[in-house]
Amino acid sequence: MPTCEDGFFEYLSSIDCSDVEVYAIPEGSVVFPKVPLMRIEGPAAVIQLLETPFLSLVNYASLVTTNAARHRLVAGKSKNLLEFGLRRAQGPDGGISASRYCYMGGFDATSNVAAGRLFGIPIRGTHSHAFVSSFMGLDDIIDRTLASSDGSNKCEDFVSLVQNWLARIKGAGSLSGTFGETNLSELAAFTSYALAFPNSFLALVDTYDVMRSGVPNFCAVALALNDMGYKAAGIRLDSGDLAYLSIETRKFFRAIEEEFGFVGFGKMNITASNDLNEETIDALNKQGHEVDAFGIGTYLVTCYAQAALGCVFKLVEINKQPRIKLSEDVTKVSIPCKKRCYRLYGKEGYPLVDIMTGEDEPAPKVGERLLCRHPFNESKRAYVVPQHVEELLKFYWPGTSSNPREELPSISEIRSRCMAHLDRMRPDHMRRLNPTPYKVSVSAKLYDFIHFLWLNEAPVGELE
Amino acid sequence: MPTCEDGFFEYLSSIDCSDVEVYAIPEGSVVFPKVPLMRIEGPAAVIQLLETPFLSLVNYASLVTTNAARHRLVAGKSKNLLEFGLRRAQGPDGGISASRYCYMGGFDATSNVAAGRLFGIPIRGTHSHAFVSSFMGLDDIIDRTLASSDGSNKCEDFVSLVQNWLARIKGAGSLSGTFGETNLSELAAFTSYALAFPNSFLALVDTYDVMRSGVPNFCAVALALNDMGYKAAGIRLDSGDLAYLSIETRKFFRAIEEEFGFVGFGKMNITASNDLNEETIDALNKQGHEVDAFGIGTYLVTCYAQAALGCVFKLVEINKQPRIKLSEDVTKVSIPCKKRCYRLYGKEGYPLVDIMTGEDEPAPKVGERLLCRHPFNESKRAYVVPQHVEELLKFYWPGTSSNPREELPSISEIRSRCMAHLDRMRPDHMRRLNPTPYKVSVSAKLYDFIHFLWLNEAPVGELE
Repeated sequence: MPTCEDGFFEYLSSIDCSDVEVYAIPEGSVVFPKVPLMRIEGPAAVIQLLETPFLSLVNYASLVTTNAARHRLVAGKSKNLLEFGLRRAQGPDGGISASRYCYMGGFDATSNVAAGRLFGIPIRGTHSHAFVSSFMGLDDIIDRTLASSDGSNKCEDFVSLVQNWLARIKGAGSLSGTFGETNLSELAAFTSYALAFPNSFLALVDTYDVMRSGVPNFCAVALALNDMGYKAAGIRLDSGDLAYLSIETRKFFRAIEEEFGFVGFGKMNITASNDLNEETIDALNKQGHEVDAFGIGTYLVTCYAQAALGCVFKLVEINKQPRIKLSEDVTKVSIPCKKRCYRLYGKEGYPLVDIMTGEDEPAPKVGERLLCRHPFNESKRAYVVPQHVEELLKFYWPGTSSNPREELPSISEIRSRCMAHLDRMRPDHMRRLNPTPYKVSVSAKLYDFIHFLWLNEAPVGELE
Repeated sequence: MPTCEDGFFEYLSSIDCSDVEVYAIPEGSVVFPKVPLMRIEGPAAVIQLLETPFLSLVNYASLVTTNAARHRLVAGKSKNLLEFGLRRAQGPDGGISASRYCYMGGFDATSNVAAGRLFGIPIRGTHSHAFVSSFMGLDDIIDRTLASSDGSNKCEDFVSLVQNWLARIKGAGSLSGTFGETNLSELAAFTSYALAFPNSFLALVDTYDVMRSGVPNFCAVALALNDMGYKAAGIRLDSGDLAYLSIETRKFFRAIEEEFGFVGFGKMNITASNDLNEETIDALNKQGHEVDAFGIGTYLVTCYAQAALGCVFKLVEINKQPRIKLSEDVTKVSIPCKKRCYRLYGKEGYPLVDIMTGEDEPAPKVGERLLCRHPFNESKRAYVVPQHVEELLKFYWPGTSSNPREELPSISEIRSRCMAHLDRMRPDHMRRLNPTPYKVSVSAKLYDFIHFLWLNEAPVGELE
């Protein structure tokens, strides 16, 4: 069957989802294996067609959001995290998804201008190496005038101002000896960039040599900008030993502060990039560094540590009959029945356990003791007295129902939800090494029903 | 800078690429590191804007095509390879790219119907597990009639025909004892599927138990279809020990052929899926199996073995001045100048070496001895007498030039090119373990020029 009949596409264009109801855990929530992310109800044929679209929309989105959140966790809250993945994503649209969901997972900004335009995500970046190497020297700069930030005066030759500052840096006792002649193509590129974007001068300093050229050139331009009332945005390191170079750069910035009495220059932003991931950031933290912002691309958007999330779409009930998918691999056995899902919170405000019940069971009540059972392991059970009960599946798509449904939140609300939910987790569930597994359970009634079905459906084998 | 000025988007919409010329190695070609895939010429600002779009379009496409070709290499030419990755790709569009480029890399078909529709890629697949578990029993089948393939007669109760065949299989000496009662929900699902698609009945047989239920149920339906002039398409295994189950299934098919004199039934197609990749297919090959077709998803589209391809975009010349990007890491040093690139073939028809020359150097000539130098390693050099010379970069986008440009081939032409190019490689370059690296070189003149620039641009450091 090399082709698909046109009739199928006509059928597709004729159907709609007006008979479909969708319940889902709100986007940006922390979720756990076995608890359904969505519950879809409606005509079997239509629902079946939704399997691949929903998986395609949920799997990568959840994976990359999680990956972003993991990077945030290791980088700490005080650092700026920039998503730089567009060129390594699965084509332009994969890159847009990556930017969107990395922001939800706790990144601060993206270098993807289209994602900024579409979703209002802050955009950040520097110029390219090619921009630096496209300059031959200072003569390439034609228009050398720069109006001051407040418009009160104008510098007719900003290039000379930069050159004067470079000479002063070179002549300063605390700074001389760390470098000789800086690269003039680079100086021209930085100066030209500053003339175009005096309010957001962030320079990539590793095209030639970070300490002997890039950083002194940056400082000369930053000091000249300061004369005109502008504040430089900082530098980016994109190669070499990031711990060492960030520390050396910080020393240089502090020396500038001291030498020229420029209050705050020592705190100038240092951004680092170059194949960063959770492990390298963790290693940098252990080693000590002076990086304020991390630009992360390849490892973030390709989810290098785990390239796919295996969410699946299972039939759990049809015509009011429960259905179970059995497997010799118990992790692949599905939990039957239309279900309700709750998160139970303890006295200290942490989530204690998620519990699934049949649709018609009463909801867990605050202060009432409740038996939570492992869905498949008979011996794992615990009583819980919840201090707070949260129903997880919310109603998002109405079908024929007239029940009120949830509003769709903005991307920044989802991002805030995600970060608040992560903050609310008990720390031992979140640690990098040997985290305590979070418990997911079923009610006693659902447990009994699952095992009744299991015994009735499973084929009886023979031991050979 | 949380936002981007509207003026930038206005500028973007005002520019075009009429001053840009694009040269590229034809899509589907085998390529090697250092040889530029594309050469872009034009105004610096416009070219710079093309960096990310081109990288985003080329990186993942090249990576997944290569990954597909690697899977083809290990599976062998006789097997059918089906791309099943949509639900694990980076969103719907990532999935479309995956389907398109896996086909170019040598896959036979995709389960992605949209990709089939867009690009004419053959589509293949089975029903879902949910389809099987949505049936309660044979009573669910309302319309039981099936017209014969040639329209000459009609079976009023195809369900009974299937049940009769199941009883005959169960009663047959060679087959009895391998199974008892098969699952009736499954039998109902298979029968219903065959009634809807009698010409493409491919059954997923592992919902309950492959050998005790799925395979006998499939055979009953396939034999009933045969009575009506239809040929079943085969089965799919999606769990368990694929080597063992495929061999056992093959035995069962052969026993059916023998028992009922059904010529060819023993050769019935067996498709396998379930987290397959190069390694698992290699292991299956070593173990022995009876699989005819592999359905590969997650590991294929996410490129699990290497999740990103690091193609970069470098400035090599501006205003007729060569530019070089230096780095302490020699693999990151760019090769300067506008270049021509050639592939030189030897007597046996294999490609021997790729060579880059300056734009104005004469092209290598058939039968003439030519010095090929490693771009960075002085001691690596060899004389080559090419028997055939292929210029690699072709002219695809005209800019202001009136030179003739290449036509864009169809997807199936690109796929054929890709497979022909792979076939033409010397086998030791292609083996899985310790392949011989293919040589990439520069002309003597370009070598000297690179090293002249390098010495002039590189900062002179001090050994501490």
